[in-house]
Amino acid sequence: EYRSSWRGLATANTLPSAFPALDTFADRHIGPESREVSHMLKELGYNSMDAFVAATVPPKIRVASEAVSNESIPPLSESELHRRARDLANANKPFKSYIGMGYHNAVVPPVVLRNVMESPAWYTPYTPYQPEIAQGRLESLVNFQTMVMSLTSMDIANASLLDEATAAAEGMVMAFVSSNQKKRTFLVDSSVLPQTLSVLQTRAKGFGIQLVVGDVFESLGDEALLSDLCGVLVQYPDVNGSIKDYSNLAHIIHNNAGGLLIVATDLLALTMLKPPGEWGADIVLGNSARFGVPAGYGGPHGAFFACTDKLKRKMPGRLIGRSKDAQGKPAYRLALQTREQHIRREKATSNICTSQALLANMAAMYAVYHGPTGLKRIAQKVHALTQFLRSSVEIYGYKAVNKEFFDTVTFDVSGAIKDAEAVHSQARAARINLREIDAKHVGVTLDESVSAEDVVAIVNVFAAAANSSADLADVSSTDSLSISPALQRTSKFLPHPVFNTHHSETEMLRYIYHLQSKDLGLVHAMIPLGSCTMKLNSTSSMIPLTWPEFGNVHPFAPIDQVQGYLAMIKELEDDLCKITGFHACSVQPNSGAAGEYAGLSVIRAYHESRGEGHRDICLIPVSAHGTNPASAVMAGLKVVPVKSLGDGSLDLEDLKAKAEKHKDNLAAFMITYPSTFGVFEEGVQDACKIIHDNGGQVYLDGANLNAQIGLTNPATCGGDVCHMNLHKTFAIPHGGGGPGVGPICVAEHLEPFLPSHPVVALGGEESINAVSAAQFGSASILLISWAYIKMLGGNGLSAASKVALLNANYMAHRLSGHYNLRFKNRNGRVAHELLIDLADFDKAAGLKVTDFAKRLQDYGFHPPTCSWPISTCMLIEPTESESLEEIDRFCDAMIQIRQEAEDIITGKQPKDNNVLKNAPHPISVITLSEQEWNRSYSRQAAAFPAPWLQERKFWPTVSRVDDAYGDMNLICDCPSVEEMAHGSA
Amino acid sequence: EYRSSWRGLATANTLPSAFPALDTFADRHIGPESREVSHMLKELGYNSMDAFVAATVPPKIRVASEAVSNESIPPLSESELHRRARDLANANKPFKSYIGMGYHNAVVPPVVLRNVMESPAWYTPYTPYQPEIAQGRLESLVNFQTMVMSLTSMDIANASLLDEATAAAEGMVMAFVSSNQKKRTFLVDSSVLPQTLSVLQTRAKGFGIQLVVGDVFESLGDEALLSDLCGVLVQYPDVNGSIKDYSNLAHIIHNNAGGLLIVATDLLALTMLKPPGEWGADIVLGNSARFGVPAGYGGPHGAFFACTDKLKRKMPGRLIGRSKDAQGKPAYRLALQTREQHIRREKATSNICTSQALLANMAAMYAVYHGPTGLKRIAQKVHALTQFLRSSVEIYGYKAVNKEFFDTVTFDVSGAIKDAEAVHSQARAARINLREIDAKHVGVTLDESVSAEDVVAIVNVFAAAANSSADLADVSSTDSLSISPALQRTSKFLPHPVFNTHHSETEMLRYIYHLQSKDLGLVHAMIPLGSCTMKLNSTSSMIPLTWPEFGNVHPFAPIDQVQGYLAMIKELEDDLCKITGFHACSVQPNSGAAGEYAGLSVIRAYHESRGEGHRDICLIPVSAHGTNPASAVMAGLKVVPVKSLGDGSLDLEDLKAKAEKHKDNLAAFMITYPSTFGVFEEGVQDACKIIHDNGGQVYLDGANLNAQIGLTNPATCGGDVCHMNLHKTFAIPHGGGGPGVGPICVAEHLEPFLPSHPVVALGGEESINAVSAAQFGSASILLISWAYIKMLGGNGLSAASKVALLNANYMAHRLSGHYNLRFKNRNGRVAHELLIDLADFDKAAGLKVTDFAKRLQDYGFHPPTCSWPISTCMLIEPTESESLEEIDRFCDAMIQIRQEAEDIITGKQPKDNNVLKNAPHPISVITLSEQEWNRSYSRQAAAFPAPWLQERKFWPTVSRVDDAYGDMNLICDCPSVEEMAHGSA
Ligand SMILES: Cc1ncc(COP(=O)(O)O)c(C=O)c1O
Ligand SMILES: Cc1ncc(COP(=O)(O)O)c(C=O)c1O
Ligand SMILES: O=C([O-])O
Repeated sequence: EYRSSWRGLATANTLPSAFPALDTFADRHIGPESREVSHMLKELGYNSMDAFVAATVPPKIRVASEAVSNESIPPLSESELHRRARDLANANKPFKSYIGMGYHNAVVPPVVLRNVMESPAWYTPYTPYQPEIAQGRLESLVNFQTMVMSLTSMDIANASLLDEATAAAEGMVMAFVSSNQKKRTFLVDSSVLPQTLSVLQTRAKGFGIQLVVGDVFESLGDEALLSDLCGVLVQYPDVNGSIKDYSNLAHIIHNNAGGLLIVATDLLALTMLKPPGEWGADIVLGNSARFGVPAGYGGPHGAFFACTDKLKRKMPGRLIGRSKDAQGKPAYRLALQTREQHIRREKATSNICTSQALLANMAAMYAVYHGPTGLKRIAQKVHALTQFLRSSVEIYGYKAVNKEFFDTVTFDVSGAIKDAEAVHSQARAARINLREIDAKHVGVTLDESVSAEDVVAIVNVFAAAANSSADLADVSSTDSLSISPALQRTSKFLPHPVFNTHHSETEMLRYIYHLQSKDLGLVHAMIPLGSCTMKLNSTSSMIPLTWPEFGNVHPFAPIDQVQGYLAMIKELEDDLCKITGFHACSVQPNSGAAGEYAGLSVIRAYHESRGEGHRDICLIPVSAHGTNPASAVMAGLKVVPVKSLGDGSLDLEDLKAKAEKHKDNLAAFMITYPSTFGVFEEGVQDACKIIHDNGGQVYLDGANLNAQIGLTNPATCGGDVCHMNLHKTFAIPHGGGGPGVGPICVAEHLEPFLPSHPVVALGGEESINAVSAAQFGSASILLISWAYIKMLGGNGLSAASKVALLNANYMAHRLSGHYNLRFKNRNGRVAHELLIDLADFDKAAGLKVTDFAKRLQDYGFHPPTCSWPISTCMLIEPTESESLEEIDRFCDAMIQIRQEAEDIITGKQPKDNNVLKNAPHPISVITLSEQEWNRSYSRQAAAFPAPWLQERKFWPTVSRVDDAYGDMNLICDCPSVEEMAHGSA
Repeated sequence: EYRSSWRGLATANTLPSAFPALDTFADRHIGPESREVSHMLKELGYNSMDAFVAATVPPKIRVASEAVSNESIPPLSESELHRRARDLANANKPFKSYIGMGYHNAVVPPVVLRNVMESPAWYTPYTPYQPEIAQGRLESLVNFQTMVMSLTSMDIANASLLDEATAAAEGMVMAFVSSNQKKRTFLVDSSVLPQTLSVLQTRAKGFGIQLVVGDVFESLGDEALLSDLCGVLVQYPDVNGSIKDYSNLAHIIHNNAGGLLIVATDLLALTMLKPPGEWGADIVLGNSARFGVPAGYGGPHGAFFACTDKLKRKMPGRLIGRSKDAQGKPAYRLALQTREQHIRREKATSNICTSQALLANMAAMYAVYHGPTGLKRIAQKVHALTQFLRSSVEIYGYKAVNKEFFDTVTFDVSGAIKDAEAVHSQARAARINLREIDAKHVGVTLDESVSAEDVVAIVNVFAAAANSSADLADVSSTDSLSISPALQRTSKFLPHPVFNTHHSETEMLRYIYHLQSKDLGLVHAMIPLGSCTMKLNSTSSMIPLTWPEFGNVHPFAPIDQVQGYLAMIKELEDDLCKITGFHACSVQPNSGAAGEYAGLSVIRAYHESRGEGHRDICLIPVSAHGTNPASAVMAGLKVVPVKSLGDGSLDLEDLKAKAEKHKDNLAAFMITYPSTFGVFEEGVQDACKIIHDNGGQVYLDGANLNAQIGLTNPATCGGDVCHMNLHKTFAIPHGGGGPGVGPICVAEHLEPFLPSHPVVALGGEESINAVSAAQFGSASILLISWAYIKMLGGNGLSAASKVALLNANYMAHRLSGHYNLRFKNRNGRVAHELLIDLADFDKAAGLKVTDFAKRLQDYGFHPPTCSWPISTCMLIEPTESESLEEIDRFCDAMIQIRQEAEDIITGKQPKDNNVLKNAPHPISVITLSEQEWNRSYSRQAAAFPAPWLQERKFWPTVSRVDDAYGDMNLICDCPSVEEMAHGSA
């Protein structure tokens, strides 16, 4: 009896197979049990899953079931996966790294580690598009913004970008745009991080920006350069640890040359250094990871980005602002949403969508916990240890190249030894990594995790290399700072109450729990956001992530120390190739949009390699996600939109006409499959053929890959390259708005062009430059998708896709008759999501999509994707992880709201003051006095319209948030001491 | 600047001390920052902490500050502790154990591991004395009870006991009590677990029960024995794996002999075996740990205990029942509280107080997640693998002694080899532990974690010992069960909806979060329960607990495999001795009450060793905790109460008179210090001298040790033995009602009598028998207290005690004038808690302690300890972990409630229908319609009486629970399918 999987899905592949493992993951990941699957099939009129799938997925694009099967991807049980992850962890060598170059060992406060990073309450929510059920992480992101603004002394900061290098690229493009795209020269100091430079090179190409790399002070003597200058990037402190005074540079740029001064910097250093905002920076950016986020072999980390007030409406990424709700109470929400690519499309100059919310939250919590005094103490200790190191190492004849530094010293070794390798070989013997600069120079960067004993061990390394035994400098060598007085910080930072209150673990824990209590995540209910695939983020796949063997790894650690990581990444890449039908993979892009940009850049490089670099037209359906046109523009392409037909399918005629019209310059076609309208288009292969016939390449946006696995694949559909959102299809949690990973898979002819990296050997001669700071992007979270794939195995993966289709179709079936299903295929089937059109309600009674969405909150659900890809629609995606019970509960809610709308349409309820227009109803509204409760419906009807809510109710914490007010009165930091005192927070 | 601890408490002791660690634990553990400490001192009129302490703790009992200092206990920073714990973990060898004997390798469902075991929402709440803010874990505990009832087929089950051995002892005493203490013979089958037998021996002694050990079937032939028989204990399956049919035994006992049939059993086996309830058992008990709780070197584990309906009101431990609230809605709560020792005191026959709530919840969640079908599949696989093992091993000439078995086979090796050691040495080489029975017999027990590969490895061991190479049996050897048809289970189990719903991880996660959302824990607010010391349970101290190197250790693993554990336990014992001033320590008792019993048993053994075994009088103050008299009775002592004086101090005259009166038979004096009235008695040393002068020993109940550390200690106060509640003073989380650890420390003359263990060498010739199943009790959670002590270090520990005193005194100061502080010392100081008397409110307006307590819930606080030790009082203990802000918030709430009471007294509000009498106010009440809201106060006044509640409110989920109704209509299982269908749940 135990030998067949009792919930009816995959079984594990153990030896002897007579005794299969019982902790099979498919049984836990997939929501409906087999009897529920049968029930849904029956409701839809099919007697088997196969028959259902045949009616749903066009036969001509189906792939053989061997492609993704238990033979090609054998499933591991949950405990087998755990053991395998343990083996990989043990294959990474835990050397201590002092390499620096933008990456540090972090000390994660245990209370934050366990209650934020490891907590599904924090990692499962989506980007806070629904502010009424997201005030917790909105507040935390505002803390992040405030922290960045205060430490950098800038007017405004966003809620994170993907990494420091891409943040620098965003800055460069802002500078270019600020010159009205007139000035094309961008000057980069030669001491910026090499990975930043590489990413700038990639990005400059698309925009036709001219990068000049050199000593900024010297370069500014060049008049020709000055006249075309849109901006300058410097690093403060720089890659070698030096701290230069750039105030004069700022003066020159602002008064003589014009253009923006962009400063890459380090938040911890800024507790001791004069902040760039005080000496003229226009944009300040960097990596916040040393505020309690593990190195994780390169990421994910929250980059920060701050600018002057003048530039604020050009700033990329998500910005959180304070507004007010329908009751006039303060409330946070995403500000300036009108700037996002959904609206701007090909006029956007940034494609940033998913960012690094979870990591930004961790960094913000770190600052909340330590407070200004704690941060300063940490910085002071790091600095003093660095001074002590410098003085001790100099005893042996090594010479510090930089006299002024914060945490990094570059030693000229030539006074002591012949070749730096002598130091490095001693270091390796001591299980230490130092920065390998060249034969004459060795770099050392310290951080919060470093103890005096660690420094003694480093000193020993240098001493041994010089055939000496350790001697230490006097501690008095640390008595005065190694920072010139003019560059020492004198201004206060983080005076806000939130950074000066939660300093005991008990207080911090309560603050974390208080914020999370306001946020709806997958721990509460379905989040049926179309195109976002909010599925289970399993504990088994999350557990290895916070093992130190994966967390404490520097991305530039020698290759023999990272064999566990490399094996895992190779397996993941191979599996993604099997799943997509492609030949090669790059996991470097750290979001879906970054994947789009990388894939299109690869296509451009391919055309160039064939002498067709002029190909610059990109066809994109009007229904495409806003990141598609934005990415195309960034890759230097011109966007030509393609129409859709009335049935939602691509207008092949229009496609053909435009492909032919542009055939000499056709670079690419971008398509999402199944389409963003939620149907499998029959003509996808025909469309791709049209493109290929006209010399173009096909980019497939894999956001909807969850509909495909084991049934079809992007290669079979006709694509040349696709990105995947590992944070959708492959179960990386959304983290409240990131992290994400957007790897690209490509056909064989495109492999030579996959991204390289300037520090770590990757790619070949024809490779494009880097698209992310780290060679494998957000490497540590690749573990999650790796585990997801390995645990489901081939059969489980395709079972998941089948159930995703089934759940969506069952939902469409239940809602039909109540709502207008906008598109379906000729058999009446949708794909893994469904689009319902609410336009009629607006016509009949002025009821908008938003009214339905906010009312769903009252029923305890996160609303589906609203007004995209069609403004009057909702796009609903249940995913395979939702059980029949949850899906029915959601349908019941939708149907009941339909009835509530009917009462408004028929005049039983007023058109303005009704349950939909007033939704959502927080407790503060429900408990209004009898006088204030001036409504034609009862409190019960407002808050408990469905029976299950009596037992299980998630409460919005504010009423409907006023976006326009917030955008007009943009306030993006947390309340100050004065505001708290006056109660205006 | 960074060199002095910025929050002003301890600094870490690193080398070189010029660069101290900054992650010092004291700064995080202690709530008030130094400026707040100064503020509180000033409010109290002291200009230094020393002056305050001098006025609070009697000078004559003060100890030198060296006793507990950074020299005697050097502090480790949080990261240093982590590294040290890692080293200890690595010192345990991860052999795989198949030893059985009541302990198994468990597979913890990852979703339960992370979201229950590792979640402060689950581990920080207290025992659910306040049902309105504890419905979540009450429901889960009812799931546990239901699971036990259903699997055992018994009428009723409690919500866990400490371990299987003590559960058996509780059963034995119930049998004895059921004979009206007339029949003194208790028969124990010789194949019960050896540790169970040892604990029975200890317990039998105190009650004067005669234990007879032998083959039960043979023994029942003995007429003399039968005539005095109160009960029989059998193990099913027994220690060797055999499954015997005891139905005839049940018949004989019930029809001929009289007495109770007690069965120790295994929940997993019961999915396949006919349950004891179906063949006549009166009591069924065992260990539930194999349901997803790690072995943890012996514990903590949740023992279960079930009995027939007839016996239910005699059942020890906590029982959760369903009742209804003031609105008539179903609600869970602790049932039959009137039976607890608080009420019964020396008439109680069990002292069980803290039990194993968290572990019971884990086991219940395991059953919810797997459901009946999943459990059965696990059992069937374990059984089939055991059959396969048996058949394979027999190939080499070994003979299975037991033909019928579930998961355990005992092999007679003599047909294959000379000495079992040949098998064991092969096993060790393969990193495997088998059960070492004797030279002829080897035992093997399998469990859920065992794979087919593991079995092959075991077979290899036996093969190699027989100089053979591995050959395997045919899988068909598993085709029919090795359980006699008569003993195969045919009845269904766990048909309840809750066990048949939450089987996907998403559903399970939501169920866990749904339950936890109903429970107030330390993650929400202060839990100022007097005598319970609800302080921070730090993440740093919790992290190592769930490392597999500590979790996957069998308590009877060979000594060389547990060196990490042994080192940690030794360090903890040494530190506890330093703290108490005593000479030796035993960590075996797994609760405070178990510590009392162990300590008193040690005292008795000491008297016996001196030929004074007749000493059996125990003096106990009337104010003592109910467990004290109960424990005394269990240790065979007669309780003589001692009076208190009007000022709360012990009546030394009365003590002297009684000590002298009983001097020939005086065994012990039990005293809590500071007293349960919350003051340091001046005369404690005099009291102890009186006892010693009259031949008695002094037992010090250490529940209040948090007031003492580094300031005084039990030895200095005059005690001979004390227990500590590690789950109070030493920061083991309460887990919602357990686990706990109650180690005892003793003076040198008592050391020889500390508990031994029947399986593992411990103690000496004069040792008492075991008091817990495992030699080190709940070994794994000792890590938490070890970490707590190591991280605080000596200075931090005494700083914590000082701030605990300060917080309580500041609170007393703020409440004075508003409430009647019952006792204080001559300087006006209380100890670490304060007792306020509400009797006047009852007189003036019929307002009871409960009304104040329930109203505090509306303010978001867990009420203090109510009606103990004085029925009209509240005992309030803030602990050192609460910040000044939180303490002020609590005082503000108390003062405002005082005002609400005043309005009732003065007639502004009615006496019956007011905010206190109607408290607490759940949302369901707040949202009543205008008609139903028939109250003279507003919804706002009900739910948001204080400003901070607008932003931060914890909601009770039911209104006041009706205890009497529940006790009259005792229902202790979860709703059945029928009830759910009829909505009567
Ligand atoms: C169809 C589609 N393409 C691209 C993206 C962008 O992915 P990311 O947010 O990871 O940048 C999204 C995001 O939701 C999407 O839905
Ligand atoms: C004074 C006192 N003694 C003993 C105990 C019993 O401890 P435990 O619950 O761990 O058995 C308690 C429990 O609250 C107590 O307050
Ligand atoms: O996140 C999206 O923009 O869909």
